[in-house]
Amino acid sequence: MAQFINSKETLVTEAIDGVLRGARGRLARLDGFPHIKVVMRTDWDKSKVAVVSGGGSGHEPAHVGYVGQGMLTAAVCGDVFASPSVDAVLAGILAVSGPAGCLLVVKNYTGDRLNFGLAAERARAYGIKVAMVIVDDDIALPDLPQARGVAGTLFVHKIAGALAEAGADLEAVTAAAKQVVRDVASIGMSLDTCTVPGSPKEARIAAGKAELGLGIHGESGVELVDFMGARAAMALVLERLKPHAGQGPKVALLNNLGGATPLEMAVLAEELAKSDVIPDIQYMVGPAAMMTSLDMRGFSVSVLPVKEADLALLQTTVPMLDWPGCLSIDTPEVQPIPDGLTPIKPIPSSDPETAALVAKCCGTFLEAEETLNALDAQSGDGDTGSTLAGAARALQSAIPQLPLADHTQLYRAIGLELSQTMGGSSGVLLAIFFSAVGDAASSGQTNVEALKTGLARVQEVGGASVGDRTMIDALAPALDALSNGTAAAAVAARQGANGTANILRAKAGRASYISEDRLSGHNDPGAEAVALLFERLARNS
Amino acid sequence: MAQFINSKETLVTEAIDGVLRGARGRLARLDGFPHIKVVMRTDWDKSKVAVVSGGGSGHEPAHVGYVGQGMLTAAVCGDVFASPSVDAVLAGILAVSGPAGCLLVVKNYTGDRLNFGLAAERARAYGIKVAMVIVDDDIALPDLPQARGVAGTLFVHKIAGALAEAGADLEAVTAAAKQVVRDVASIGMSLDTCTVPGSPKEARIAAGKAELGLGIHGESGVELVDFMGARAAMALVLERLKPHAGQGPKVALLNNLGGATPLEMAVLAEELAKSDVIPDIQYMVGPAAMMTSLDMRGFSVSVLPVKEADLALLQTTVPMLDWPGCLSIDTPEVQPIPDGLTPIKPIPSSDPETAALVAKCCGTFLEAEETLNALDAQSGDGDTGSTLAGAARALQSAIPQLPLADHTQLYRAIGLELSQTMGGSSGVLLAIFFSAVGDAASSGQTNVEALKTGLARVQEVGGASVGDRTMIDALAPALDALSNGTAAAAVAARQGANGTANILRAKAGRASYISEDRLSGHNDPGAEAVALLFERLARNS
Repeated sequence: MAQFINSKETLVTEAIDGVLRGARGRLARLDGFPHIKVVMRTDWDKSKVAVVSGGGSGHEPAHVGYVGQGMLTAAVCGDVFASPSVDAVLAGILAVSGPAGCLLVVKNYTGDRLNFGLAAERARAYGIKVAMVIVDDDIALPDLPQARGVAGTLFVHKIAGALAEAGADLEAVTAAAKQVVRDVASIGMSLDTCTVPGSPKEARIAAGKAELGLGIHGESGVELVDFMGARAAMALVLERLKPHAGQGPKVALLNNLGGATPLEMAVLAEELAKSDVIPDIQYMVGPAAMMTSLDMRGFSVSVLPVKEADLALLQTTVPMLDWPGCLSIDTPEVQPIPDGLTPIKPIPSSDPETAALVAKCCGTFLEAEETLNALDAQSGDGDTGSTLAGAARALQSAIPQLPLADHTQLYRAIGLELSQTMGGSSGVLLAIFFSAVGDAASSGQTNVEALKTGLARVQEVGGASVGDRTMIDALAPALDALSNGTAAAAVAARQGANGTANILRAKAGRASYISEDRLSGHNDPGAEAVALLFERLARNS
Repeated sequence: MAQFINSKETLVTEAIDGVLRGARGRLARLDGFPHIKVVMRTDWDKSKVAVVSGGGSGHEPAHVGYVGQGMLTAAVCGDVFASPSVDAVLAGILAVSGPAGCLLVVKNYTGDRLNFGLAAERARAYGIKVAMVIVDDDIALPDLPQARGVAGTLFVHKIAGALAEAGADLEAVTAAAKQVVRDVASIGMSLDTCTVPGSPKEARIAAGKAELGLGIHGESGVELVDFMGARAAMALVLERLKPHAGQGPKVALLNNLGGATPLEMAVLAEELAKSDVIPDIQYMVGPAAMMTSLDMRGFSVSVLPVKEADLALLQTTVPMLDWPGCLSIDTPEVQPIPDGLTPIKPIPSSDPETAALVAKCCGTFLEAEETLNALDAQSGDGDTGSTLAGAARALQSAIPQLPLADHTQLYRAIGLELSQTMGGSSGVLLAIFFSAVGDAASSGQTNVEALKTGLARVQEVGGASVGDRTMIDALAPALDALSNGTAAAAVAARQGANGTANILRAKAGRASYISEDRLSGHNDPGAEAVALLFERLARNS
């Protein structure tokens, strides 16, 4: 699959410059592209222990995203999934190390060990104090003494970085880092492999399966397991971590391997929070993409038992957005639903004239059901007549419960009734119309003014204007004419409705998806319904 | 493809609770699951204008990720790609609106317009002041008056939210929001479609193609274009935005539609920063996943011309990590490579005895080339002999340039020579060995002590111990015996090397991937090389 890159060869250097563009002067890089790719703090005075990490790229935001006050002093980047060279690491060490020395945090891969290791020797030959910790937190391969370094490395970055920032010496920073390496355990699960730039994607994992115990370089998981949803996946991962999880309060780092959506990661966070497989997980880092494997649809969990001092170091704030913080796992706070969701039932009142008017309107739509359905079949799914007739039937039977003597309340009640009984967009639009009319009437507008306010609201919400082949093409002229009487309104509505037969490009509603030939010569069913209603009202007035 | 969810039906509610788990008490939800999914600020006293947004889920972190001080007061969530119900929106409005009223920020989709619109009417019936803005920033469909609302909505959230936080009244907040809606323009490009939970993925976009002008609900792009890399993609997107981009200084929001990797997004940021298609883009929001379409591998750019007041509102800090800030686009800061990368050439000095010793060592490996290659063919790729012979040849010819009279410098010089001429892990490990020996010797250790220090460093970096079927199995006993003379060391090395023939489970190095039968009865070639070396040194001593 194609990717948004220019070339495999320039990918990492261009990406680093892209990150620096928005670094607010916080970060700089060494002038060694393409061979030497080192990003470092610009506010660094070498007075404290430098913490340097890095490795192959493809794990972003690791490691550049963690360069800054309180975490890494510099990151040394290789190409995608390839260790940086000895020269690159040495350049990084030399650029940031002062008398306090430098701690190298290295993930346990042969290339990284060797290149960081030799660079450390070279730096030592210059009299620089260099210590190195090798992170091997992956528990997927129990028999291999050379466990991989994966997302648990973030704990080392944060704790060592916070200690160094606080002024601890190299021995203390190194000792703390080594303690984290001893204590932390990680494992990952994935539903799909990653896409390595310039290489075809390997479709390795069958549907319904997941890989457990994978690395961060596209290597296969140790086991192929049945995938049975987020809950079972998290339970399995925690079961595997349990024997390595240590005692006392723990922090879990929930890492997105790159391709899982925020929705999925949030569901996994919820499952992690609810699980009791590993007791005493009280804090969480994430969920976030922290140590990715390009676009791999997977996650990993790293568990670290923490004493109070470590927790404090994990919780110091840093300016890097890519560190999501170490937060206590809370119970979701739930607040009661506010009053008012169930609309107040209007108090019924009687008014024979109004009752007759409402009944007459309803009758119009009951009679016109077939006509309107037939018209709608030309431009939609042929149900306008049935929808209106259904609503009319419901409204008719509700007449005894309506506040007929209070027209303001009546409009609102009709709006409510329609919103509850009539489906689709038109039901909501009519409900908005009548609610708005009711509000306008209650604020003192005349009937005609209030009806026009309702129309304006419908236009705002529905986004249709006159000429868009909707019911508005009849309703707008009818309301404009209404102050001259119902007969005038009926004439205007009829003219407007008939005009829709010549509107061949619908701009709103479902008819906008229909070809011009099918629309030609047929009135819009909504506009027709409005015309029929006004004609009926005019006939008997 | 499977996803890390439990069921389509519980996806959004579980994800919301997952987010609330880490909200530090900043967020709460209404007690209306599953129908009413409203997330709101807990520090809200209703004294200011509430800003409420929402819509279908699947766009995370929109909208829950923007709820907090200075942006949204509440987010109303529908199911994936489905509008929330009228009741849900009404519940959100009622929960957070006080006398200052409420602004609804709605993306221009029929369902959202209608449901938010009717909810607004219902809220108004309770006397609540409700305003509504409909965001239609997508310029992909020039003929449709109903443009979609996409990532430009974030500008509305931030500017309206910052104004409301500052105490502006509903009219002012609404006017500012409407101004943003008028000014902002967005367009997206994608290389792949998204995976809707519970539905099979539609593989719609052919290799080498990209869709331009797509929405955030999986709908097709308006055009299928040739994909010719990140630079051309960004140029095309900016060309389309240019006629809509307005005058003066501008902010570009670079949004990950979900599935692009951080590397790709950083490359796109670099292209955006370097482009001069649209003049005066001085600030960037992102790159970040802000308004996603599930896992769509795509991006969008939204451009907003800004006056100083708007810029200030965009730049107020908020506690939500999902808002990446609005930063000036800087030139990457580049610092010179530190001195010391090119190792100081040692000053040659002469010492016939040492020269003879070095030559003798080299001779050993030149003679053993075939033997060692044959042994390596059993467990590796058969080149141990050639690798060592090549290094020996290079070292031999370098003898006149070596600081033979200064053993400390000599060790370092040999390490440097090996690191430059010998490929592979073993070259680096030997370089580390000799560098460390040189350092140890310079710090006053005896020759034997220094050699042991070198071995310890190799073990630390290489991760191998005695018994792991490596050269260490010969070197470690040889150095232990060396204080008793070279002959004793040679006996010990031979014993150790021969012992490797019985080590059937290699724990480090390439032999760890080889089956036991192939290893049985053959000495490890590295250990054999060490034994041959000590035997040769003992013969002539």
